[in-house]
Amino acid sequence: MTKENKKFGRRDFLLGGGSSLLLASTLSTPALSKNIRRLNMVTTWPKNLPGLGTSPERIAKRISAATDGKLNIKVYSAGELVPAFGAFDAASSGLADMYNGAEYYWQGKNIGFNFFTAVPFGMTANELNAWIDHGGGQELWNELTSDFNLISFQSANTGVQMGGWFNKEINSLDDLNGLKIRMPGLGGEVLRKVGAAAVAIPGGEIFSSLKSGAIDATEWVGPWNDYAFGFYREAPYYYAPGFHEPGASLAVGINLDVWNTLSTSEQSIIKYACKSANDASLGEYTHENAKALSILKKDHNISPRYFSDEIMKEIGKISKDVVYELGNADKRTATIYQSYIKARNSYSKWTEMSDGLYINARKISDE
Amino acid sequence: MTKENKKFGRRDFLLGGGSSLLLASTLSTPALSKNIRRLNMVTTWPKNLPGLGTSPERIAKRISAATDGKLNIKVYSAGELVPAFGAFDAASSGLADMYNGAEYYWQGKNIGFNFFTAVPFGMTANELNAWIDHGGGQELWNELTSDFNLISFQSANTGVQMGGWFNKEINSLDDLNGLKIRMPGLGGEVLRKVGAAAVAIPGGEIFSSLKSGAIDATEWVGPWNDYAFGFYREAPYYYAPGFHEPGASLAVGINLDVWNTLSTSEQSIIKYACKSANDASLGEYTHENAKALSILKKDHNISPRYFSDEIMKEIGKISKDVVYELGNADKRTATIYQSYIKARNSYSKWTEMSDGLYINARKISDE
Repeated sequence: MTKENKKFGRRDFLLGGGSSLLLASTLSTPALSKNIRRLNMVTTWPKNLPGLGTSPERIAKRISAATDGKLNIKVYSAGELVPAFGAFDAASSGLADMYNGAEYYWQGKNIGFNFFTAVPFGMTANELNAWIDHGGGQELWNELTSDFNLISFQSANTGVQMGGWFNKEINSLDDLNGLKIRMPGLGGEVLRKVGAAAVAIPGGEIFSSLKSGAIDATEWVGPWNDYAFGFYREAPYYYAPGFHEPGASLAVGINLDVWNTLSTSEQSIIKYACKSANDASLGEYTHENAKALSILKKDHNISPRYFSDEIMKEIGKISKDVVYELGNADKRTATIYQSYIKARNSYSKWTEMSDGLYINARKISDE
Repeated sequence: MTKENKKFGRRDFLLGGGSSLLLASTLSTPALSKNIRRLNMVTTWPKNLPGLGTSPERIAKRISAATDGKLNIKVYSAGELVPAFGAFDAASSGLADMYNGAEYYWQGKNIGFNFFTAVPFGMTANELNAWIDHGGGQELWNELTSDFNLISFQSANTGVQMGGWFNKEINSLDDLNGLKIRMPGLGGEVLRKVGAAAVAIPGGEIFSSLKSGAIDATEWVGPWNDYAFGFYREAPYYYAPGFHEPGASLAVGINLDVWNTLSTSEQSIIKYACKSANDASLGEYTHENAKALSILKKDHNISPRYFSDEIMKEIGKISKDVVYELGNADKRTATIYQSYIKARNSYSKWTEMSDGLYINARKISDE
């Protein structure tokens, strides 16, 4: 970050027409309404990446609209001000005012951050929303982020992701043995325990790695984001479900010193802009994933497959062990884990009875 | 509505300290910030009805917080200013400023309103959000409501409801024949076609009707709302899923003359308060339904059952016929129906692959 950037940082109030108007206008009502405060939001996303990169822009627009432009959020894509994974530190230190990213990127700070994005065989988007808003999740999150001088809110959700693209059929656990698959994080850890060679590769390098044979398979997000990368051309066996990320929640984190300078109404506007964008994002993923799934089927002859019950049962068992171990990494994480897993076990019974049975009934009636 | 109420109607601006302060304060900046505008919201819900009746209060609080109290939404429960089903006309005519209710209550105005709440074997909450925000639903809704001098936004969702409480097992379609069941609206129409005697009874009379034997069965909402009524005591066979309402969306409708007097920022604040409350409501239903389901199981020995595939297949077929007929009632409804059904058929394929397969995999791994 340059000094020029710092000059327009979080403690400056900028006036619409330039600073020469400042003294002349503070005493009259109309000019007061022109006070504009700019806040910098650094993100972990490439510019305009569909769904993920466009979501912070949506939030910025909503905040601007609700404040008559008085809160002006300037969104920076990864690398513009700080590298993708420098976003947290930038907002924590005050170099930036806020960040947008996935909380599990910060698991190096505390393992507990994983539970605010997604864990294998964990909660769906609706369930995570329930826990955060009504099951004590936000309070635990606030305790965690306050250690880093931040406060965070849910801002988007991908919904259930896909299991990945493979260059062969996956009919049994044996088919995963020795398989070179791009799957970072906890999902990768689970797959390594069934013998797969799970590796972490940045998004931009996946396609060429599939093409060169460096990897046999990859996961990414879902049809919308996956189709754009063209994975279907190299690894046409498309499997569901994405057991490793059953609803990845993204977040906006705000520097607490900045937060505390905001009025109660500005705080409310930011919070509910994030929450309303969370609602809009899951809807957008539903709409766009459905559209891309149809294109993959019709134009590219891709027939999605699903992992067998045998595979899911075993991977589910391992996932729970991995998440249990993770959840006991330290005292703070253990508190978060215990609350998370209690909610997950309670909500999942209701989800099976409601969404689970309804989706099945509708499927049968549509056949 | 009395004259007194009208006096504090939509075109008045009220000042915090009383009208005697009005002239003295309009010229100075600090006093301007005390301008308070009160808007009356009439609702279709009894006071403090969990989930449904508490949701408009949540929206009012968010709007007040985001405007520093300048927009003060006064919520009236059913009967306080106008009867429950008078809410739409009150807001449409300007007698009230806004209403909160379920859009299908207004199907007497236009059949198309059904599609903005729920229809049998229709879209889930997430799918409806997708259609409204990203699939052209809001635009069609705006066209419909503008005929009534209103603009409406989603404000809450119950999620998938339950199929109902029965005084006997339901193992086949024959068991529904002649059954006296409380199921109003389209669900009732579907059940009548398989021989059930479906009737509409207000919520407050259901329990006594079950007790007296006037009805054999009833649907209501889900475990949270159902448990409060104690239906389990009279009709302990609890069936899922609620095919008739797979995610009932509620709405706030605002008088267009009032809407047009609001600033762009106030309009944004109202819209995103509603949308963020929509997000919070589905989470709340997930949290509370799960809790109530567990209490019903543990403390009252209720083991929920599910309708057989055979029953769901036949009811699904009839539902689609009923909804098709409904969707062709008039020209405007047909436009809405065609957009709705296209979205429903597209999204359902993705939902089966994402939530459907994931919920099933997690269930298997939890067994």
